[in-house]
Amino acid sequence: MKACGLIVEYNPFHNGHVYHLQSSKKKTNADVLVAVMSGDFLQRGEPAIIDKWHRAEAALQSGVDVVLELPYVYAVQHADLFAKGAVLTLNSLNVDCVCFGSEKGKVKPFIDAYHHLKGKESTFNEELHLHLKAGLSFPEASKKAYEAVQLTTDGLDLSKPNNILGFSYVKAIYEAGSMMKPETIQRTKSGYHDPEIKDTIASATSIRNEINTNIRLSDKVINAIPKVTSDALNNYKNKSGLFHQWEHYFSFVQHTVLTKRIDELQQIQGVEEGLEFRLKKTAKKAKSFYHWMELLKTKRYTWTRLQRMFVHILTNTTKHELQAIHTLQTLPYVRLLGFSSRGREYINRQKKQLETPLISQIQSLQHPFLDIEERASDTYYLAIPHHKRSEIAKQEIGPPILVN
Amino acid sequence: MKACGLIVEYNPFHNGHVYHLQSSKKKTNADVLVAVMSGDFLQRGEPAIIDKWHRAEAALQSGVDVVLELPYVYAVQHADLFAKGAVLTLNSLNVDCVCFGSEKGKVKPFIDAYHHLKGKESTFNEELHLHLKAGLSFPEASKKAYEAVQLTTDGLDLSKPNNILGFSYVKAIYEAGSMMKPETIQRTKSGYHDPEIKDTIASATSIRNEINTNIRLSDKVINAIPKVTSDALNNYKNKSGLFHQWEHYFSFVQHTVLTKRIDELQQIQGVEEGLEFRLKKTAKKAKSFYHWMELLKTKRYTWTRLQRMFVHILTNTTKHELQAIHTLQTLPYVRLLGFSSRGREYINRQKKQLETPLISQIQSLQHPFLDIEERASDTYYLAIPHHKRSEIAKQEIGPPILVN
Repeated sequence: MKACGLIVEYNPFHNGHVYHLQSSKKKTNADVLVAVMSGDFLQRGEPAIIDKWHRAEAALQSGVDVVLELPYVYAVQHADLFAKGAVLTLNSLNVDCVCFGSEKGKVKPFIDAYHHLKGKESTFNEELHLHLKAGLSFPEASKKAYEAVQLTTDGLDLSKPNNILGFSYVKAIYEAGSMMKPETIQRTKSGYHDPEIKDTIASATSIRNEINTNIRLSDKVINAIPKVTSDALNNYKNKSGLFHQWEHYFSFVQHTVLTKRIDELQQIQGVEEGLEFRLKKTAKKAKSFYHWMELLKTKRYTWTRLQRMFVHILTNTTKHELQAIHTLQTLPYVRLLGFSSRGREYINRQKKQLETPLISQIQSLQHPFLDIEERASDTYYLAIPHHKRSEIAKQEIGPPILVN
Repeated sequence: MKACGLIVEYNPFHNGHVYHLQSSKKKTNADVLVAVMSGDFLQRGEPAIIDKWHRAEAALQSGVDVVLELPYVYAVQHADLFAKGAVLTLNSLNVDCVCFGSEKGKVKPFIDAYHHLKGKESTFNEELHLHLKAGLSFPEASKKAYEAVQLTTDGLDLSKPNNILGFSYVKAIYEAGSMMKPETIQRTKSGYHDPEIKDTIASATSIRNEINTNIRLSDKVINAIPKVTSDALNNYKNKSGLFHQWEHYFSFVQHTVLTKRIDELQQIQGVEEGLEFRLKKTAKKAKSFYHWMELLKTKRYTWTRLQRMFVHILTNTTKHELQAIHTLQTLPYVRLLGFSSRGREYINRQKKQLETPLISQIQSLQHPFLDIEERASDTYYLAIPHHKRSEIAKQEIGPPILVN
């Protein structure tokens, strides 16, 4: 059975994702699709609109065969670490290839870029650091740094968000010494960060914006997502009473920042360069999470970076706890969220040769990463009123989802 | 000017307190009454129903001349440390005597008890520890320990709550080597812990219970408090929208316990003897603060002790931060909340000879205790919705209250 890996967030699962998985399957001639998906908190430092179980289920109903959880410690990170965690996860399930969507749509320029850059990492990193320090955003600074190492591979624009991610995936695959073959399909028109829905293929950002401004799912939203997703969204809203967003967690981070001492704040992942003082100074003024972000934001601290820091404050995740992720070459475990019957067959065939423990429940194994996973999940569900919470959160201690 | 010290919580200020201050003034022939009052969190581990400023104001309007804040580090503590903090505070303002209410009503038995017990502390403490370990409550265990050292002073029952406190005050006065003279007046009938209002003199507990079960102040409540208190209560409720109670802080302590690691919980004041594990185990089950307390409570962990622990969890106060309070013989500062013009005159006369800095704003001085004070105050006001909060919390950075 040939397996194709997908690296996803599905926040929420939409028509563009359907296109991505179908095209990937076709292009790679795969029998099974194995997705590694962020959990309840996402790469850009946000709570997912609905929990990982409901997002996974919609994907399984639409052609994905296995959904694995990208550990929190890699998920809420910049592109390189996010990619590393995702690649190590897929690799430990012996997936044959990884197919990502990109603006470029051809994989060779990514591979060429990787080989061109090899050995030039220190120059690249120095340049990157210099431009970041000068106040450029990460995409801007990396563009400059690529120029400095004379990277001009067939017009591959490494300031475009999905090209950046794609390049990180290719790099992570080679650096892990993985046998997985990188592949890419071209993304359709809709920009990653488009604020508004313009078509039946729309960005997840635009879909979330539209969802959050209406009580019911509007026609625009319904046209941009498969029926399984509208069912998942409605089902989740009925059970929990809400779609998760940062404002639900504002009072928790405010309380945490007001009561932690400066030296405690400094230990939190992402609290750097004096941000601990800025946090303390602005905590009481902030009228909402959004307002607090506005008070904190400067050229130096990008929105995404600040949001990631706030997720780590919310889950009390320290720099010390994350030290291991930089040096790990294999994962301590892989967590299975759900599978189709074909996915189950694939897993069963692989099982004997797996070197990494495959678990579905947090309780199955003792590991510091799983402690963090549990804190993240517990915190995520705190947004839901208590009388509705335990019903929805119980999946966390149940078996993986099976979609036939 | 002769000054009489009162040790109070005023939660809220009621007719019994009016009787206490008038009788104390008469009995000690004092010109000014100096009260040391708990701040926003109280000895029994609860948030005060209204903030310290509104409680202080009502007292100043009723005959108290100076209100000083008992530092948080002493206020949310068992009787001995509470007494120590209060006595050191009054002592640093050169107060002449301390007059407390007691079931006994005569001060000599308290003094005799102190002298009788002197030198027998180790036996007493061993016995106390033994009985506590055997599962007795603190009042029960101390009663047994008093019997073991053959304390039978004129029928002074040291299991009665105000006698316990009174004895702690006398002990603290002698141990501090203070020149202040202890005095007592007999409390009127109403029991300290009476759950219901029975008269115009009622316990603060019964008044709070009655307030919390009605939207408006009932006639029963109004009959048991002076007009200045009903004004203060109504005024506070109008401005803030609420009377503070533990349930307002439930989600904060729940989030904190769910996200702190075991070793971090162990550092919090009051988290002892495996309570960290019990806390973690029960945190998700708890449907409310009250329910959580029910889940945690055993013979070994009394209600008050658990509540105090929760206050320290809420304010992130560690054992390490409180180490100093056991050895300190003078306070690092005394904080003035308000005064009458007579009180101001007293303060002005004393000012030159004061050895302890007298401050009104937290910002006037740098001290670890003041950091805790700020955290406590910030947390206390988090119960109030943001748009009403800053208006009411601004007193915290203003001048002391002056009531003419």
